[in-house]
Amino acid sequence: MATRPLPQHISKQFDKELEDLRSRVMIMGGLVEDLLSKSLNALEQGDIELAETVSTSDYQVNALEVGIDEECTQVLARRQPAAGDLRLVLAVIKTISDLERIGDEIEKIAKMVAYINEKGSPKSYYISVFSMGQHVQQMLHEALDVFARMDSQKAVEVAAEDERIDKEYSAILRQLITYMMEDPRSITNVLDVVWAVRALERIGDHANNICENVIYLVEGKDVRHTSIEDIRNEISTDT
Amino acid sequence: MATRPLPQHISKQFDKELEDLRSRVMIMGGLVEDLLSKSLNALEQGDIELAETVSTSDYQVNALEVGIDEECTQVLARRQPAAGDLRLVLAVIKTISDLERIGDEIEKIAKMVAYINEKGSPKSYYISVFSMGQHVQQMLHEALDVFARMDSQKAVEVAAEDERIDKEYSAILRQLITYMMEDPRSITNVLDVVWAVRALERIGDHANNICENVIYLVEGKDVRHTSIEDIRNEISTDT
Repeated sequence: MATRPLPQHISKQFDKELEDLRSRVMIMGGLVEDLLSKSLNALEQGDIELAETVSTSDYQVNALEVGIDEECTQVLARRQPAAGDLRLVLAVIKTISDLERIGDEIEKIAKMVAYINEKGSPKSYYISVFSMGQHVQQMLHEALDVFARMDSQKAVEVAAEDERIDKEYSAILRQLITYMMEDPRSITNVLDVVWAVRALERIGDHANNICENVIYLVEGKDVRHTSIEDIRNEISTDT
Repeated sequence: MATRPLPQHISKQFDKELEDLRSRVMIMGGLVEDLLSKSLNALEQGDIELAETVSTSDYQVNALEVGIDEECTQVLARRQPAAGDLRLVLAVIKTISDLERIGDEIEKIAKMVAYINEKGSPKSYYISVFSMGQHVQQMLHEALDVFARMDSQKAVEVAAEDERIDKEYSAILRQLITYMMEDPRSITNVLDVVWAVRALERIGDHANNICENVIYLVEGKDVRHTSIEDIRNEISTDT
């Protein structure tokens, strides 16, 4: 089984509650995607005001997490779900925790945009951040798509992106170090960019976790700490 | 209520299962503490072999997390716990996730110890890491103590330590930047130390999360994204 249809229960209300949990995760995911996009636009356009809007929006992400988490606890207490339903609720709890941490990383990026602009750092320092940013945006979008469709096959493919993002991160970091060595006065300014790039790399890690949560939910297997190759093999032997 | 006694159920077996979950978290916590202590000793003594032992021990932390997480899912499915029992299981799920991430950060520190020693970086670069490391070690130990005793009052005090650690981190970072500016050839070496210090700061964040999990468990209140002052007020009005 590679995707998971919505469960059908005798209690229509229970169906509705589970569906509601899923759709609230998607709303939270949409908000996080929007904030990431705005923070990268703010960097590209040097728009400090937009960056500040992003910085002050993180509370919305936090409020959604607390609300959905509370709803999950209530569903567990009231419905006492078993098997796939239980895994769905647990996957939601883990996914919103990852989305919340992505929100924290986006906030860091937005703050860096403000510093970078105030100090007037040359664009050459952070031009490479855009392509990595787009890559991470794409991966996050796909991870949320995987969650919406509950598609474990696609989850494995998206999780594999994380390695590419890690390589991109290392390459950019090496480049940033050369800037610092060429002009030591630039060190603090370049370090601002380093923190932004590192935040993007962390977002990739969390998008990866979201994919693993979906694999756990659909396949009933905990694949954290398992290589992509092994996950592929595990899933394909079942289908 | 500031501490939470062990629940007493008609089913002695259920009591035993909950107690078992708690003690397995403490075993996992003990392992993580031991690895952190070893990684800091390895740094202090320049012991690359010890650092490598730590690097290769992270799989034990991961295995414990997967095992305890599985046990939590089984308890939820079989016992369908309510109220405080449910919160205990959910707090365990969150706490082991934090411990696992602490394990990841310790692995980063151990790898940095190897780099720092291979490059023969002068001790002055990382002397300040020891005091911060001791501080973080202390906070982690207290956070685990808070979990063992289920003491929400103490949890608030320990969580407050995180702000002090963040300040220590910022001060060390500023110092490290001056080293880089004074001698640009040192940049890559000093950056190794920066990553180790950042990993310590993240461990403080996770120890803070563990305290918040205990407050949620004991008080039934989600205090994430709440200031220490507000948490103190909330808890004291109840007791």
